[in-house]
Amino acid sequence: MALPRWALPEHFEDVLPQSAARIERLRRLLLDEFRLHGYQLVIPPSVEFLDSLASGTGADMADAMYKFVDQYSGRTMALRADTTPQVTRIDAHLLNRSGVTRLCYCGPVVHVEPRSMSASREPLQVGAELYGHAGIEADVEVLRLLARTLQLAGTRSSRIDVGHVGIFRALSAMAGLGGEAERTLFRILQAKDVPALKDFVAGLAEPARSALMILPELYGNANVLVRARSLLPDVAGVREALDQMLHLAKHLGEQPLSFDLADLRGYHYHSGLMFAAYCGNSPTALALGGRYDAVGAAFGRPRPATGFSLDLRELAALSVTAGEAGAILAPQEEDPALQDCIAALRAAGEVVMLALPGHRGCWREAGCDRQIIKQDNAWGVVPLQD
Amino acid sequence: MALPRWALPEHFEDVLPQSAARIERLRRLLLDEFRLHGYQLVIPPSVEFLDSLASGTGADMADAMYKFVDQYSGRTMALRADTTPQVTRIDAHLLNRSGVTRLCYCGPVVHVEPRSMSASREPLQVGAELYGHAGIEADVEVLRLLARTLQLAGTRSSRIDVGHVGIFRALSAMAGLGGEAERTLFRILQAKDVPALKDFVAGLAEPARSALMILPELYGNANVLVRARSLLPDVAGVREALDQMLHLAKHLGEQPLSFDLADLRGYHYHSGLMFAAYCGNSPTALALGGRYDAVGAAFGRPRPATGFSLDLRELAALSVTAGEAGAILAPQEEDPALQDCIAALRAAGEVVMLALPGHRGCWREAGCDRQIIKQDNAWGVVPLQD
Repeated sequence: MALPRWALPEHFEDVLPQSAARIERLRRLLLDEFRLHGYQLVIPPSVEFLDSLASGTGADMADAMYKFVDQYSGRTMALRADTTPQVTRIDAHLLNRSGVTRLCYCGPVVHVEPRSMSASREPLQVGAELYGHAGIEADVEVLRLLARTLQLAGTRSSRIDVGHVGIFRALSAMAGLGGEAERTLFRILQAKDVPALKDFVAGLAEPARSALMILPELYGNANVLVRARSLLPDVAGVREALDQMLHLAKHLGEQPLSFDLADLRGYHYHSGLMFAAYCGNSPTALALGGRYDAVGAAFGRPRPATGFSLDLRELAALSVTAGEAGAILAPQEEDPALQDCIAALRAAGEVVMLALPGHRGCWREAGCDRQIIKQDNAWGVVPLQD
Repeated sequence: MALPRWALPEHFEDVLPQSAARIERLRRLLLDEFRLHGYQLVIPPSVEFLDSLASGTGADMADAMYKFVDQYSGRTMALRADTTPQVTRIDAHLLNRSGVTRLCYCGPVVHVEPRSMSASREPLQVGAELYGHAGIEADVEVLRLLARTLQLAGTRSSRIDVGHVGIFRALSAMAGLGGEAERTLFRILQAKDVPALKDFVAGLAEPARSALMILPELYGNANVLVRARSLLPDVAGVREALDQMLHLAKHLGEQPLSFDLADLRGYHYHSGLMFAAYCGNSPTALALGGRYDAVGAAFGRPRPATGFSLDLRELAALSVTAGEAGAILAPQEEDPALQDCIAALRAAGEVVMLALPGHRGCWREAGCDRQIIKQDNAWGVVPLQD
């Protein structure tokens, strides 16, 4: 069947006025909050060389991007599928600060395949990243900022799950896994596939074997961390990861944190603490974040890094906000008193649109619910009379 | 020579914090102004089917776009090079209102070739469009909004040139031109190539011949319109165009309008009044706009339309604005009095960033010029002591 000319490709959509206004309000709220915490806005290009976009945190993203050839260099360019590699490049190469750099961004990214059946192929990615500090204080700050983001959006019953890739790494090293075997185990845990995990660990030596099998049971509130300390082998990698998670539990007590020691879903390039925000009963994470230290090495400068990102459209759709007031229709007259009245209303935040001749009866569909008329020789606002 | 991995393709760039902050401020200023005048924000996708993007106002844009194949439909998709065809599609098909629709947008577009040696291949296109009204009131409104846009941006010595494609069309019809010959004449006038014009008109009959030759001399203030009335043939198309321009001269007397009866530079798809804003001595238009009636026909619904668009990055670079205040550095302490102090400063619009341990001496490069310290048992702001 031939598609009509106005049809859009699947998983792409137009954002119409009501949703666009909600997204724009939330965009400003979040970027303002980030700014007030010292996160400076950067705007990387939508298009770059594939080599750059597939570096660092983008290493497993090459297939997720649309590609085309740059006629200037003959090199392959791509449409970005993630902003983090770009912001890492900006920190590593362009800003080149020796201390802490806090950056944020907001712009569309495009995926060849949607992340889920209901996902858009063009998320409006907003995020915040903190570079240059390896200590746990940076993770605390970024997690607090994510929690504040969810709060500002007015999402209901959201929670943040915390994991740590260090536990997986330590147990995998203990079991003598490497290369392909480690990647297989990573995929099994990502998928939370317990039967496959049972098969996989069957050939491994203790205590790694039991520790890996118990991992999927270690989720819940901070008590899980105490259980983990008694059940998992006391080696440096595990100890350090549990200490960091206990630190978060202590310093972010006001937040709805939960811990999941086997959760590797949705993580590519993380090197330490990882977190994911969920809302309501949705199994899909609304926001993903965590540590990705040393990723800037791809751009010549390894730096500690932690941050998060999310799809602003998805967040706006979940956010509980009041509806917009309707607009006011104004007649086309050159009377200075009318012009003053219109200017005063706009200065007070009211939308005032000029009537154009010949469209009587069509202003309600344009969003008007009031109009300016002259009564007793003065201009005033009354309900719209169609 | 191999390019380093952090290099960007030519004519693409990262917008770093200072410029990004200026662009963001201007973005809000303009979108707010548009909103208060009844222009509703829409967010079309960055990617669509090529057929759609190359319809209507996009008819001559197919070569300007990067293309790739959609694996769902097997059809060719493209990265948009202009937002107007998308907004026209939204008006014609999605909103489908019978009356007036005012829409605005702001987002990146990507060009295969930059428009000039110094232009970006990724303008941040912002624009406003008014659909459904054929009368001159719509042109007056859109021109006023463009003038207000330039004023809000604080551009210096900007002016708006007004032309009308109707004069060209009427003279061309009078000379019996059509098809390729008309397109050649259009290109000659676009290029303001007077010798080529002389050659071209040599074979044409009077009065079209003299009228076409005088056209490039008809530019300047509203007096030009009076001269044009006496010098050009008194046919319907010419009369109507001059009447519309005289109406603008009368109703937009407060604006720095100039008229150029041969100016066809930068216009593709216009059907009536056209305008271009220039700033300082730059020969490149900062904003382009005008009438493009009936273009929605490509989406099944011809509607009168007028509007303008510009590159927000370029506008922001020209705008005269005050510098940002520096940020305030706050110590990491759990003292509730400190937390209150930080919250109050942020509520007042100050950027407050938390110090992270081990980065003494590096906070000035992060933008700090003040810090919070405890003096006499109270928290207060003092100049940054490195």
